[in-house]
Amino acid sequence: MPTSTAPGKIYLFGEHAVVYGEPAVPCAVERRAAVTVEARDDDRVVVEASDLTLDGFTVTFDGSTADADPELDVPTRLVQSATGYVEEAVAQARDAADAPDAGFELSIDSEIPLGAGLGSSAAVAVAAIDAATRALGVTLPREELAERAYRTERAVQEGGASRADTFCSATGGAVRVEGSDCRRLDAPELPFVVGFDGGAGDTGELVAGVRALRERHAFAADTVTAIGDVVRDGEEVLADAPAGSPADESTLAVLGGLMDFDHGLLSALGVSTRSLDAMVWAAREAGAHGAKLTGAGGGGCIVALDRTDETERALRYAPDCVDVFRAELATEGVVRT
Amino acid sequence: MPTSTAPGKIYLFGEHAVVYGEPAVPCAVERRAAVTVEARDDDRVVVEASDLTLDGFTVTFDGSTADADPELDVPTRLVQSATGYVEEAVAQARDAADAPDAGFELSIDSEIPLGAGLGSSAAVAVAAIDAATRALGVTLPREELAERAYRTERAVQEGGASRADTFCSATGGAVRVEGSDCRRLDAPELPFVVGFDGGAGDTGELVAGVRALRERHAFAADTVTAIGDVVRDGEEVLADAPAGSPADESTLAVLGGLMDFDHGLLSALGVSTRSLDAMVWAAREAGAHGAKLTGAGGGGCIVALDRTDETERALRYAPDCVDVFRAELATEGVVRT
Repeated sequence: MPTSTAPGKIYLFGEHAVVYGEPAVPCAVERRAAVTVEARDDDRVVVEASDLTLDGFTVTFDGSTADADPELDVPTRLVQSATGYVEEAVAQARDAADAPDAGFELSIDSEIPLGAGLGSSAAVAVAAIDAATRALGVTLPREELAERAYRTERAVQEGGASRADTFCSATGGAVRVEGSDCRRLDAPELPFVVGFDGGAGDTGELVAGVRALRERHAFAADTVTAIGDVVRDGEEVLADAPAGSPADESTLAVLGGLMDFDHGLLSALGVSTRSLDAMVWAAREAGAHGAKLTGAGGGGCIVALDRTDETERALRYAPDCVDVFRAELATEGVVRT
Repeated sequence: MPTSTAPGKIYLFGEHAVVYGEPAVPCAVERRAAVTVEARDDDRVVVEASDLTLDGFTVTFDGSTADADPELDVPTRLVQSATGYVEEAVAQARDAADAPDAGFELSIDSEIPLGAGLGSSAAVAVAAIDAATRALGVTLPREELAERAYRTERAVQEGGASRADTFCSATGGAVRVEGSDCRRLDAPELPFVVGFDGGAGDTGELVAGVRALRERHAFAADTVTAIGDVVRDGEEVLADAPAGSPADESTLAVLGGLMDFDHGLLSALGVSTRSLDAMVWAAREAGAHGAKLTGAGGGGCIVALDRTDETERALRYAPDCVDVFRAELATEGVVRT
């Protein structure tokens, strides 16, 4: 039975500004979704999911209807969203393998917190499509995998999907995204620490808020451009460091300074929150080289750069932080076993 | 015996960027330093000071030496700084009144926290010069008073003084400062609430930090310019509101949004702190229209806009806040009784 895993991602730089054509640098991180698939003799799809919030969730797809366990203690929206992802991923796998009537048993196990802005859905889509096609004897190139996972997200999220998430999950590493162009960057190893406040912002509302500010005030448009300039500086720093080796302290210091600046600009644009700022300060005061919110903001996660255990320890005791973990840059995207 | 009082100030917009020629809008607030002066028959200067940290401080000037009470429980630096201010203010008063050998008894009573970035020294200088010259029968125009108080600050602070603080204290109201040009703005009544974390940043270091960022990164220079643009927008909002009347809710909402944005840009420039951000969020979550650090940052005060008691109450319970008070815009500068 083929198992595929795919990593989640954080934004090192550039979220929100990327909506207006500025570049951004998401990075795959070593927190993975694993999907094991077995081909069935019939055309049915059976899913078993166990992860942070969908533990014990088992659902059987039979044609177009999906019935979740009525005992299930998770919001219906999340179940529908999860089943929607699997349904679309299965459709992509059938299409890629030219097997419209293929049936599957999928087992999903994710260590990426759901709804935290860490790209858990993209990782599940990538791993599911990859494992399902392999169960049919087809191994997709990573670019096609990324594209099909993107279509999966786009179908479920109704237009709000980002190519960056699925590209990151499929290819791994640090990625440069600008418009619809995604490409992998040479980058050193980066010691990320992620703190999660247990919340999640409404991405659509947050993007709309930035858009309104940007349309109303020239200085807000300039702030978006300044984020793009931070990203361009950050890319140069990544390119100057030896790829694949641990980043040295001076590289971490410069990247951390850029992360701090980016966080301030995002705060000006109104997408930070009390708890995100509190976690950012806990990390900085613990000696992190820099810290920023990651993703859309409004709650969710921060990412800090720290090779020591101090940031992790500080966040573990920070009242606003419900989960903290080290998540090194994932140089591998999808991994097949 | 003439008594003069002069108000402290907060920055509604524009601190740090003002160093690079951008406009800023400090506002006098209803927290005052009071100085009562009696002319002596000899040329001696006797000072009695009671305020938040110099309570019970009595010092006699005899020529060029100043002896503080050895029992005094305040840092020597503050005592020297305070005696320095009084010495320079007395020199300005003697010069203005053309009475080089005049002696004075000065009694200083300030309700402005010292070292909090609220312009306590400027207020003391303004009130002291004004009361001392009046004790000699001379009443200075406010512009000259502001200028002489500025020279007092400049002499003591060795070049770091701002014309804005003394101008604000002398004339009151909302002030526009750009380079060495200060002028009063028409402005509505504004319901400021000030929170103080008990700390103080090193203004010189903070200014140097912004300078270094600005020289290193184009996006930091653009951030400074963006602060200037926030200020220019804020000036228009002030000008559009009926001067001297309470600002309406929509004016407060727009000003608050600009304050929030300004705070984010200042955060990007590295001058905010954990405790300043925590107070800013406490104010916003209490329903303030907006909140930002005021002054150089690195610790000290935040200012929020809220006509209700909610922000004051929230800050009173915020762990990072050691002092909180309402401080309406002071439309009168120096007040003579």
